Amino acid sequence: MPGNTFGQLFRVTTWGESHGPAIGAVIDGCPPRLPLTEAVVQAALDLRRPGKGGPAETARSEPDRVEILSGVFEGRTTGTPISLLIWNRDARSEAYDALREVFRPGHGDITYQAKYGIRDHRGGGRASGRETAARVAAGAVAQVLLDRLGIRVTAYTVALGGVRARAFDPEAIETNRLFCPDPEAAARMEARVAEARAAGDSVGGVVEVRAAGVPAGLGEPVFGKLDGELAGALMSIGAVKGVEIGAGFRAAEMTGSEHNDPITPAGFEGNNAGGILAGISNGDELVIRAAVKPIPSIARPQRTVNLRGEAVELRVGGRHDASAIPRIVPVCQAMVRLVLADHVLRARGQGQAIDWPGEGR
Amino acid sequence: MPGNTFGQLFRVTTWGESHGPAIGAVIDGCPPRLPLTEAVVQAALDLRRPGKGGPAETARSEPDRVEILSGVFEGRTTGTPISLLIWNRDARSEAYDALREVFRPGHGDITYQAKYGIRDHRGGGRASGRETAARVAAGAVAQVLLDRLGIRVTAYTVALGGVRARAFDPEAIETNRLFCPDPEAAARMEARVAEARAAGDSVGGVVEVRAAGVPAGLGEPVFGKLDGELAGALMSIGAVKGVEIGAGFRAAEMTGSEHNDPITPAGFEGNNAGGILAGISNGDELVIRAAVKPIPSIARPQRTVNLRGEAVELRVGGRHDASAIPRIVPVCQAMVRLVLADHVLRARGQGQAIDWPGEGR
Amino acid sequence: MPGNTFGQLFRVTTWGESHGPAIGAVIDGCPPRLPLTEAVVQAALDLRRPGKGGPAETARSEPDRVEILSGVFEGRTTGTPISLLIWNRDARSEAYDALREVFRPGHGDITYQAKYGIRDHRGGGRASGRETAARVAAGAVAQVLLDRLGIRVTAYTVALGGVRARAFDPEAIETNRLFCPDPEAAARMEARVAEARAAGDSVGGVVEVRAAGVPAGLGEPVFGKLDGELAGALMSIGAVKGVEIGAGFRAAEMTGSEHNDPITPAGFEGNNAGGILAGISNGDELVIRAAVKPIPSIARPQRTVNLRGEAVELRVGGRHDASAIPRIVPVCQAMVRLVLADHVLRARGQGQAIDWPGEGR
Amino acid sequence: MPGNTFGQLFRVTTWGESHGPAIGAVIDGCPPRLPLTEAVVQAALDLRRPGKGGPAETARSEPDRVEILSGVFEGRTTGTPISLLIWNRDARSEAYDALREVFRPGHGDITYQAKYGIRDHRGGGRASGRETAARVAAGAVAQVLLDRLGIRVTAYTVALGGVRARAFDPEAIETNRLFCPDPEAAARMEARVAEARAAGDSVGGVVEVRAAGVPAGLGEPVFGKLDGELAGALMSIGAVKGVEIGAGFRAAEMTGSEHNDPITPAGFEGNNAGGILAGISNGDELVIRAAVKPIPSIARPQRTVNLRGEAVELRVGGRHDASAIPRIVPVCQAMVRLVLADHVLRARGQGQAIDWPGEGR
Repeated sequence: MPGNTFGQLFRVTTWGESHGPAIGAVIDGCPPRLPLTEAVVQAALDLRRPGKGGPAETARSEPDRVEILSGVFEGRTTGTPISLLIWNRDARSEAYDALREVFRPGHGDITYQAKYGIRDHRGGGRASGRETAARVAAGAVAQVLLDRLGIRVTAYTVALGGVRARAFDPEAIETNRLFCPDPEAAARMEARVAEARAAGDSVGGVVEVRAAGVPAGLGEPVFGKLDGELAGALMSIGAVKGVEIGAGFRAAEMTGSEHNDPITPAGFEGNNAGGILAGISNGDELVIRAAVKPIPSIARPQRTVNLRGEAVELRVGGRHDASAIPRIVPVCQAMVRLVLADHVLRARGQGQAIDWPGEGR
Repeated sequence: MPGNTFGQLFRVTTWGESHGPAIGAVIDGCPPRLPLTEAVVQAALDLRRPGKGGPAETARSEPDRVEILSGVFEGRTTGTPISLLIWNRDARSEAYDALREVFRPGHGDITYQAKYGIRDHRGGGRASGRETAARVAAGAVAQVLLDRLGIRVTAYTVALGGVRARAFDPEAIETNRLFCPDPEAAARMEARVAEARAAGDSVGGVVEVRAAGVPAGLGEPVFGKLDGELAGALMSIGAVKGVEIGAGFRAAEMTGSEHNDPITPAGFEGNNAGGILAGISNGDELVIRAAVKPIPSIARPQRTVNLRGEAVELRVGGRHDASAIPRIVPVCQAMVRLVLADHVLRARGQGQAIDWPGEGR
Repeated sequence: MPGNTFGQLFRVTTWGESHGPAIGAVIDGCPPRLPLTEAVVQAALDLRRPGKGGPAETARSEPDRVEILSGVFEGRTTGTPISLLIWNRDARSEAYDALREVFRPGHGDITYQAKYGIRDHRGGGRASGRETAARVAAGAVAQVLLDRLGIRVTAYTVALGGVRARAFDPEAIETNRLFCPDPEAAARMEARVAEARAAGDSVGGVVEVRAAGVPAGLGEPVFGKLDGELAGALMSIGAVKGVEIGAGFRAAEMTGSEHNDPITPAGFEGNNAGGILAGISNGDELVIRAAVKPIPSIARPQRTVNLRGEAVELRVGGRHDASAIPRIVPVCQAMVRLVLADHVLRARGQGQAIDWPGEGR
Repeated sequence: MPGNTFGQLFRVTTWGESHGPAIGAVIDGCPPRLPLTEAVVQAALDLRRPGKGGPAETARSEPDRVEILSGVFEGRTTGTPISLLIWNRDARSEAYDALREVFRPGHGDITYQAKYGIRDHRGGGRASGRETAARVAAGAVAQVLLDRLGIRVTAYTVALGGVRARAFDPEAIETNRLFCPDPEAAARMEARVAEARAAGDSVGGVVEVRAAGVPAGLGEPVFGKLDGELAGALMSIGAVKGVEIGAGFRAAEMTGSEHNDPITPAGFEGNNAGGILAGISNGDELVIRAAVKPIPSIARPQRTVNLRGEAVELRVGGRHDASAIPRIVPVCQAMVRLVLADHVLRARGQGQAIDWPGEGR
């Protein structure tokens, strides 16, 4: 099937270009009778909203007001498709005229042109990070289901521009713009972002996502493994170049006796598994990390080619972030929410005893 | 959908347990009129076959003869489903009787029990690495299509037990049992495996896969991105705990000006992108790495619990590898083949001009 | 997967309730570089628009203006999702207050309540015929692709209220409100509708769809047969209770020597097959018929029950058609268009040589 | 996706050609812990087995022994894929040599050639009715799940060669080879078949399927409607040319007041709906009918063409039925079973309270 739909039973289809009239998502398969309001979705959107200021952020300021156009009746979901719409209000498309015929390095311009023979060059079109706003909105709806099951998904920054978080204070995550659980590291990360921006450059980082309260038994062997789908989901975010679960790449250097988490009557000792064994959740906390590349749109001059294949020098103007992290943390959270909501329903659809309050009738 | 099917248009469904009567795969969507014989599939299977000796390998020796039961007529595919069957001949199930009520640490025993309330404990049942033989067989069929397009997929070991390959000699890959492109490193890797085995332990490693000849334009935004599907495909291999594309986790520490691959009239300079931009192949070589955990079945005593939740000490007997690498390299290759064959057909199905000799009629 | 998506490669997801803010469709998989404007979609919508007058029609008059929110750039499709939106402007929801707790016979009120435990009772909610406007809009986009291949899909009325068309004048179809190819029968059908309406009743009918220019080779054995998918597509229209292909139910009374269409060097003699053999198009014209039940909303008093299971007498007020035919003919046409566009892409995706002008690059 | 897989959550993939080594099915998504033995599947297969004698039947006699190769452990399903295999033992392929270059009228020979450019001509290859044995086997597995929910699916012949059943004695169905519930009609049907066979001809008929015990709430609006999927499922049987639900084509001639089934506190009065309203089961009995065309392989000479497009006269030899009914009745039953098992799981996967004994854990 074409690639704009995610999930099997909790299915999300996103649509829209950065500088088209609007973007949106259609959610099909959300169970009925769950409480849902625009305010709940809006709160999630506000977390990834640009325009909160700070050196890592674009100057483009959009209210990103979400509208629910279907699937909700008198404050509850009805089991029919939920259509979410966000108008593109502040799109200065003319700023992109210079890019109509030039391929920005590190961007999808050249591959969209190769694939489709046509592309909406304005703001990256469909490949813009703006598309992820629709994912975040859909993730908020998924969380309404996860709430019923007591599943909580937390995303935060563990590295940025070479600066690593060394402490983990969950309270701190929401206190800084970079979603860093280590306030001291957050300050150094901000300095690193400011430095990169001043140099006309950008920096990457690492996002970690944890999911607590996940029941054992989610995930479908052998190709629908929970870790496989989480990896695919996070790698479907444009800037992500690597994904790891639990011990991740460190596991490659461990011995079996180091890596195996002993099982005790009280549960697992350690969590090198990242909460997943043989692709199925083991009841422990899920731990996933995503490597985020530096934003490719930089002010420094770059060598590239135009539509006619001629060499040109490019200086990307417009409004761009110096780090994708402040936007990508909520997107990583959203993708994990979508994976889990889908697997909750898939587990039920295989006959597993996964229930939520108010679900039975 | 349930999890035993991979791909959208080149669809592979695998089935079978380690100690059931047989394992197999059904391929639906393979284009017609491609040459296909059992010998071609057998050659791929022989690469991952245990019993070639060496300290990393299990003593279980199976010929793994594949039979093609359908979909081929007079040496050519017919467009109908291709059923591949491999009998399980040498399965000493009684060796696993001790594991009927005990959960092996690091294995799926406990999660299968949690998910299904029943499991075939013999040899890991469905979670056994043996299932991947069916993937390798299917991958060989995929390669027949890729051959027509000039796409070559190479997989090899870049790290094992902490030893890293420092040279890349493609000729060397097939000359050693570990598929290592650096003969000197291969020797040290073998020593590391022997050391781990002697200690009743096991080691992990890193597998790299390259695909050359991939046309630009494969991959579907936004959820069917080529890198997203490659990541999901490799993470669907039981022992894989991390996946990265191109610069991968190193990208998180780079600046945009370092990471962006300049575009010149002659092509890209550098390949930090790993051959993929915005989820779509850019015509360059694909480069993907997978982190493989150490095999969890080790001879050393381990703490675990039984079906009744009681603490027990486990010493895994039976025939086990000290490293999964010799088996997993061909599986990684197979999964990349499957992803590419699927995306070749999906690109055609979107109207892209991707053709192969003898395809048109 | 949930049920609001149709098609594999040309995928349409519809959303929206009769009296919610809007309805719409998202099309994923439409090939790029096809010409597409709102005017083309609007023209198809205008065919099924209520408010054209005549005794079979509801008095509800909506302009049904479609907006294209994504997937089109400078008048051509881009290969990204096409979002179609139609606002619900004229929805007098209060007219339905009496139905909040009463199940209308012949409607989905009682089954939606049983399935979801909640329903938007206003105008039938999601089960309203209004949802089919989104299908017609999507069908118009599908036709843009079919146009490139020279495929034409015609739908018309062959029976209504017991009156059968006896002549077939393709020119006449658009000249009467009932899409009847026999002008004389059309007049008697109108009289039959007026009679039913005067009696507070409604009438059913039979719609026939023909598709010309369909290349041989569309349809996928064994479960994706072209006739199987056409049948499923037409039966997915609320009022349809039967579907037949070619000779259809008459075939059950024929002998093999009568039913088999002889094959000659010039083509088939006769078309009892309806253009499909073994689920695959044979190059002949496709012929499909759908039996449409009488509209269940009638003015006559009916016995039913309320939410508490108590017997009540119901007289349906509001604005209702006396026959669904004028609305359903364009919907049948749209569904056949969607099936064919999907199968054109699926055939390409299997490697078949199906091309259209401007497709190759 | 390619067409050899049926269902969303209870997924069946069939494979195999009439004269290849074997045919089979892989079932993915069958819930765990259900009792399953080869004997249960064999019993269903024996119902459609040729070789029971009688004039409607082919002389080809195959034991059709099914083997379960995976997914069952100690007599219970494990939740992993169930692989069913049936060897083709009695295939006299040389009898088909004459058909290598000739297209039989009414068969898929010409369309397979058009689609694939290659075909296994022996016995119809993939288009053979033999493929349906795999469906019947899979249907037997589906019934094991339906048994837990008290759902019973009955299929029988209501018309054959113009002879209609006028009585309905469920006891009689299994007493005659034609599955006719009217013993007197069964005798006349047999006479009609004998007459057709003597004339070197064949006859069609109508099969009816009823499903009792179906809970209200199965079926997914709008494209996954229960009636839509039943219609598609039955039309996916090669010989079926029409499908109707409840009143079916008669509904087209009824008024709304005649067609609507009144709702009373005790349930529905009448069942013109066939147990389905707005695509969702209403708790009443499902009633579906399929029109079966006469078998196209007849002894009479027929006009056709060969691979080079030259006119030839064909007399089909070999072993052929004079009516497809004795084989198709069990296939219709199987397809309805597959649809219902799938929708039971899909309803659970949407959060509906559909449970079966032993399901919860």
